[in-house]
Amino acid sequence: MKRTLRVHFLPALATPERLRDVTVVVIDVLRAGTTMVHALAAGAREVIACEEIDEVHGHAEQFAREEIVLGGERGGLKIEGFDLGNSPDEYTRESVGGKTVLLTTTNGTRALARCRPAEQVLIGVPTNLSALCAAVAEAEHLHLLCAGTNDQLSRDDVLTAGAIVDRVCQQAKDPPQLDDAALLAQAAWRDVVAAAAAAGEPLDDRLAREFRNSAGGRNLVEIGYERDLATCADVDRLAVVPELDLRTWRIRLP
Amino acid sequence: MKRTLRVHFLPALATPERLRDVTVVVIDVLRAGTTMVHALAAGAREVIACEEIDEVHGHAEQFAREEIVLGGERGGLKIEGFDLGNSPDEYTRESVGGKTVLLTTTNGTRALARCRPAEQVLIGVPTNLSALCAAVAEAEHLHLLCAGTNDQLSRDDVLTAGAIVDRVCQQAKDPPQLDDAALLAQAAWRDVVAAAAAAGEPLDDRLAREFRNSAGGRNLVEIGYERDLATCADVDRLAVVPELDLRTWRIRLP
Repeated sequence: MKRTLRVHFLPALATPERLRDVTVVVIDVLRAGTTMVHALAAGAREVIACEEIDEVHGHAEQFAREEIVLGGERGGLKIEGFDLGNSPDEYTRESVGGKTVLLTTTNGTRALARCRPAEQVLIGVPTNLSALCAAVAEAEHLHLLCAGTNDQLSRDDVLTAGAIVDRVCQQAKDPPQLDDAALLAQAAWRDVVAAAAAAGEPLDDRLAREFRNSAGGRNLVEIGYERDLATCADVDRLAVVPELDLRTWRIRLP
Repeated sequence: MKRTLRVHFLPALATPERLRDVTVVVIDVLRAGTTMVHALAAGAREVIACEEIDEVHGHAEQFAREEIVLGGERGGLKIEGFDLGNSPDEYTRESVGGKTVLLTTTNGTRALARCRPAEQVLIGVPTNLSALCAAVAEAEHLHLLCAGTNDQLSRDDVLTAGAIVDRVCQQAKDPPQLDDAALLAQAAWRDVVAAAAAAGEPLDDRLAREFRNSAGGRNLVEIGYERDLATCADVDRLAVVPELDLRTWRIRLP
């Protein structure tokens, strides 16, 4: 059977039947996905993604306080009583090494919740692009699931999906069949790459500027987190691929 | 207030609140939207879009038989007892001049149904691109609603949305603010224009080839309607802009 590569621009567009027994890459660039990659690369034991703050406190009761780090944001800002916000750079060996990170993230958690019928669920962002593409190189049916922002598609997620499509197609001896959304995402990504090349601009810088013009990026600039955009656009900075354990629902490195 | 231009890749992504009091362009390129443009340009009195065959027969009872033309398809093919299929070229002055066209179309009708709260609803396809863009040049809040195919986005609709975005931005003294989906559609369209230019290929030919690679286009090729793709990709062939009368729910030229 022909290999396939599909993109879903929003979680609502990926019905459970469509995700059954396939490999899914969940993409939530600004900022939860990038934060997860940073946390696990910095030596965190695992990440537990929670939609609600109450859920974080519920999970916290099962651990000693020194075993866990509470992270996340509401309206972009750190939550009262939490240890860390949602800036990837806050997740260092000192702050999270050896610990379980309880992370609240609305859009990313909703996207993960769609993946229960999947065979394998990975986290993909620009930060781990090459490592992720190597990990999915052999996937027979690959679905890229963009988290979006409050049920609206998010350009940063779709561009990243396009980067993965482009890389997977370049690498494959037997390139997968792309659906219409995958073709669109790839075209959008190539448009950014071409614009960077035409302007002689480093791709990471161009990507950060593109993020600044996305709905999610504008929000971050407004609340003073513009520096996170450069962190989230830092292609291939880290070579780790977080995976969701579908039994325990925890995100770890394999 | 800043002018805005938004794109919805599927009807399900456009909630009624989002479409309240705005100008909506419904885009269903393969083939219902293009068929409507051809029918009205050929002198049809009006088009009534129906989701179900039974609805067509219900409407038909209100007319003398010679006043109406029954058109549409199931599985791409003409329906038993109907006068015409869904190929735009069938809708000529001889076949539909002066008549009311009762047209069954699943995706297009569902998209139109979303538009009840809108202020104005127009039909846009490559065939009437320039005329449409002139008609919406002054719209303060413009939404482009892609019909898709069976709840999956359709590349032909999204490329057409991108063409409209690109044209509106070029023409405007005060370019509207684009949402993330509008930026993606525009990038996809520019990618096609650039590929045509690089290959020295006429844009219409390139567009027809792109349609052939879309989910809807592949279906048409399979059932022997490949020639319709060239008709649907014939940019600016007709200078008419069908409009949905929100009171009578009939589609007419203004």
